[in-house]
Amino acid sequence: MALASLAARSCVLVIVFGLCFLSISIEAKRSSTKVVNFKWEVEYMHWSPDCNEGVVMGINGQFPGPTIRARAGDTVVVELTNKLPTEGVVIHWHGIRQMGTPWADGTAAISQCAINPGETFIYKFIVDKAGTYFYHGHYGMQRSAGLYGSLIVDVAEYKKEPFHYDGEFNLLLSDWWHKNAHEQELDLSSKPFRWIGEPQSLLLNGRGQYNCSLAAQFSNPPLSQCKFTGTEQCAPQTMTVQPNKIYRLRIASTTALASLNLAIGGHKMVVVEADGNYVEPFSVYDMDIYSGESYSILFKADQNPSQNYWISVGVRGRKPNTPQALTILNYSPTLSTKLPTSRPPTTPLWNDYYHSKSFTNRIKALRGSPKPPTTYNRRIMLLNTQNRIDGFTKWAINNISLSLPVTPYLGSIKYNLKNAFANSQPPDSFSPSYDVMRPPVNPNTTHGDGIYMLKFNSTIDVILQNANALADNVSEIHPWHLHGHDFWVLGYGEEKFTDKDVVKFNLKNPPLRNSVVIFPYGWTALRFVADNPGAWAFHCHIEPHLHMGMGVVFAEGIYRLKNIPKEALTCGLTGKMFMDRKH
Amino acid sequence: MALASLAARSCVLVIVFGLCFLSISIEAKRSSTKVVNFKWEVEYMHWSPDCNEGVVMGINGQFPGPTIRARAGDTVVVELTNKLPTEGVVIHWHGIRQMGTPWADGTAAISQCAINPGETFIYKFIVDKAGTYFYHGHYGMQRSAGLYGSLIVDVAEYKKEPFHYDGEFNLLLSDWWHKNAHEQELDLSSKPFRWIGEPQSLLLNGRGQYNCSLAAQFSNPPLSQCKFTGTEQCAPQTMTVQPNKIYRLRIASTTALASLNLAIGGHKMVVVEADGNYVEPFSVYDMDIYSGESYSILFKADQNPSQNYWISVGVRGRKPNTPQALTILNYSPTLSTKLPTSRPPTTPLWNDYYHSKSFTNRIKALRGSPKPPTTYNRRIMLLNTQNRIDGFTKWAINNISLSLPVTPYLGSIKYNLKNAFANSQPPDSFSPSYDVMRPPVNPNTTHGDGIYMLKFNSTIDVILQNANALADNVSEIHPWHLHGHDFWVLGYGEEKFTDKDVVKFNLKNPPLRNSVVIFPYGWTALRFVADNPGAWAFHCHIEPHLHMGMGVVFAEGIYRLKNIPKEALTCGLTGKMFMDRKH
Repeated sequence: MALASLAARSCVLVIVFGLCFLSISIEAKRSSTKVVNFKWEVEYMHWSPDCNEGVVMGINGQFPGPTIRARAGDTVVVELTNKLPTEGVVIHWHGIRQMGTPWADGTAAISQCAINPGETFIYKFIVDKAGTYFYHGHYGMQRSAGLYGSLIVDVAEYKKEPFHYDGEFNLLLSDWWHKNAHEQELDLSSKPFRWIGEPQSLLLNGRGQYNCSLAAQFSNPPLSQCKFTGTEQCAPQTMTVQPNKIYRLRIASTTALASLNLAIGGHKMVVVEADGNYVEPFSVYDMDIYSGESYSILFKADQNPSQNYWISVGVRGRKPNTPQALTILNYSPTLSTKLPTSRPPTTPLWNDYYHSKSFTNRIKALRGSPKPPTTYNRRIMLLNTQNRIDGFTKWAINNISLSLPVTPYLGSIKYNLKNAFANSQPPDSFSPSYDVMRPPVNPNTTHGDGIYMLKFNSTIDVILQNANALADNVSEIHPWHLHGHDFWVLGYGEEKFTDKDVVKFNLKNPPLRNSVVIFPYGWTALRFVADNPGAWAFHCHIEPHLHMGMGVVFAEGIYRLKNIPKEALTCGLTGKMFMDRKH
Repeated sequence: MALASLAARSCVLVIVFGLCFLSISIEAKRSSTKVVNFKWEVEYMHWSPDCNEGVVMGINGQFPGPTIRARAGDTVVVELTNKLPTEGVVIHWHGIRQMGTPWADGTAAISQCAINPGETFIYKFIVDKAGTYFYHGHYGMQRSAGLYGSLIVDVAEYKKEPFHYDGEFNLLLSDWWHKNAHEQELDLSSKPFRWIGEPQSLLLNGRGQYNCSLAAQFSNPPLSQCKFTGTEQCAPQTMTVQPNKIYRLRIASTTALASLNLAIGGHKMVVVEADGNYVEPFSVYDMDIYSGESYSILFKADQNPSQNYWISVGVRGRKPNTPQALTILNYSPTLSTKLPTSRPPTTPLWNDYYHSKSFTNRIKALRGSPKPPTTYNRRIMLLNTQNRIDGFTKWAINNISLSLPVTPYLGSIKYNLKNAFANSQPPDSFSPSYDVMRPPVNPNTTHGDGIYMLKFNSTIDVILQNANALADNVSEIHPWHLHGHDFWVLGYGEEKFTDKDVVKFNLKNPPLRNSVVIFPYGWTALRFVADNPGAWAFHCHIEPHLHMGMGVVFAEGIYRLKNIPKEALTCGLTGKMFMDRKH
């Protein structure tokens, strides 16, 4: 594509954003971006994700929901109708930055009011960057209820990926409990605290096996051999490859809790994409995937084609109590029903953090990727602690456990409404004397709904600081996800972050991501530019942890937004304001 | 209290009432009516209603919710905050006519929008008539989830009940499933249809015993003897009486499904009140109570005081698969823990309809009660049938299965909004050739949200006509409940109603009620005056049947309403209208 046409196209895009997509037709004339329309109905369905019947929150009769496939630059329009009997719903488009459309981010109480039963809300947004994404519920624990699906953005027409492949597959990873999400919410909000425990099953594209194993001969404890006709809701989707071809495997994790490790028996994987950003390719035989992350890997079907191979996914970072998820890499023309003769790849020990860190540290931006600003305007240190409020167990950030308000921040800030949430911002740091290696001396904390107001276009450094939980010698992995932005991951470190650690920051080729992990007792540093007017959640992507208050909200430049659709703000004080005001 | 101070206080009340309750001022001047305030939070709770732990929808940490107690003429104010994570909620004040306050009737999609999570709605209404009432959720199947409690209205000060008693007890009857209400909703909405089955337990004031029996020696199948310390959530509440005193027992049934029969071993009961209206006293040894009904009975503690006695409640009208609920009538000073030596009263055979009808036919208005108009202005015949829509199992009235709209009728009618619901009224009758004794020839029906628009102050006769369900030789009991009015029950009959049946109508002393049953293959005739501006549900009080479309809506005189609180109408087209309109 000629430089001239690229420049012209950018101009058009600026205009398009300015008018909230009114003029998308012009864009459509110049290049081949399209409007991709979906009509979805969210409803409960009987389903057997792991061969054990339960209830899932599905879309249009499907679980997981339909896959959205579009090209970079396309406008995605999802007309979402809530067919749940009594519950509200929203959908978050995980990894899509929503430049200029913060009301379409799909976070209840932050970007919009929940869509009430019977009502329809139109999500309309541009998918501006090719990559592997997904979507999921972002209200209560509706993600745990199964409200999720894949969102894949191909490169724009006439553009190419910076790597070659002959075919591709998609794997959406999730975890599944037999206890329904409402009861999980209640358990987590109970005194005494009731932990939901480890998931009963891991699901690959919504399919797992609870009471049988595909690799029964190797299973411990012993399980019977799964027998499938192929039409079962829990029958595995095998991946059929042609020998010696190269395949792209897209992987995204929407787990509620589990950190995962994926391997393809006997096959090397080359990591090429992380969270919709290209990375400098590197090879591994297994890879960790935390909730909220997505990757693309390439693999070559270079093994003995008369055999099939296991694709295995197991739990990392928590003492596992969930069997590996398995499916089959099938070499054509070998029968897809032929089970691999080998043992499925062994998931690395759950607490082998050295292994985890060595993988994570290898992720670097592809040469030529955008570089971070060299300095920051504001540094926000976020201490992650487990705490108590009146005997309830909570997670808190800088000693505040996030409790979302009734009125979405986007509206209450735009309309400068008083009393919608706490006036004062939460602290930018925590006590330097806090001992991150020990349980909190005073575990009591408070609820809060104050948020970080960021100067528009300022550069923000965030230092996520892990710490000891309530129990001695416990510090957990937390995968953090930022809405509305990608950030550069500047580095990871052990124990408490100090100013001296800045010298370790990677400003040369830090990867751009939207999700990043903090390791036990460690810190993670990231940088982003607050260039997207809106209110944006930044939170631990473990759904029970977010439910227990583990998140913050950033807001920037909301005064610049012209036309927030009223439909997004029909509740709370904004709803009242719209109803009361005299024009 | 001096009369002067009473008068001054009344004045203040008049001012308060003057805004919404114009006509009550006269009453307020005469007696000492009060405003009774409640602050409630609805939330899920772990609870063991029948000694088996589940999740209930409770209020202020209680299940059943707190009892409201007020005097006739008082204003009840309930500030209801929704603390459910993702679900809306409303509460219906069953039996309270809401004269002048139809927006406080608490029926989602009819009188108001559901209250969203985090939001507060203020129910404010006058309880104008002494009697035994209750309240319950009226959104989805939240009544099945346990959202209910008692509402008792004593006679106004200086007034007397037309009967004497020395003490009183209250029994709120309900049924309980171990499957949660969301899954029940889904089951009932599934193709193929999944029936929820009979309840696991019957509850007396929210207490039942699932895995043990209070009368183990008589239980069949055998169950172990219940042992209670008394503090258990499922421990029975015994009723302690003084020998030879007279007691009033208030009974209300908020069952989701079960028709019940109550007996007090060895004690005669005198029925004196039905649905908040006095009836001509009559004696029975057992009584039927259908969902939605309430009664008061008097009994004298005239048995051997060295013994205790069983109070038993069993299932009627459906082949039972639920053990009797039991509690103990304890004669002071006999220990309350002493079990009765006798066998608990036997519930009459489930299908002994002769027994049921003979009880029902004995209910007559107390002499001096208001008499019905002698003629009607409009007769509406309502045929009750079980049907199918696209393979889904439904109930329909005159071949329309009620499907509630997004915008509450009260608002869409008041503001004359187009497209809020079907323009045409449902039919006033059904084909004269319909054979009520056989399954429907064509079982297919349609959804509909059209409603009956009644002329204000007109007299309406309704003939509820039962029929054969989908299966051969099946016709079920349906207890119908009318909101916003009491009606006179003019009579019951067998098979198909014809004009000749009019001569059997009782216009002399028909009981005033808000709930009435249709017997299998029978009809029930009732008359009411459409004198209460509002939109009012009239429906089968079996929660699964209503969920499956078994109801209609009446509306009258809505143009007369001046100030419907906007808070009741924030959703759907009314919400949109309020937000869009220029003042």
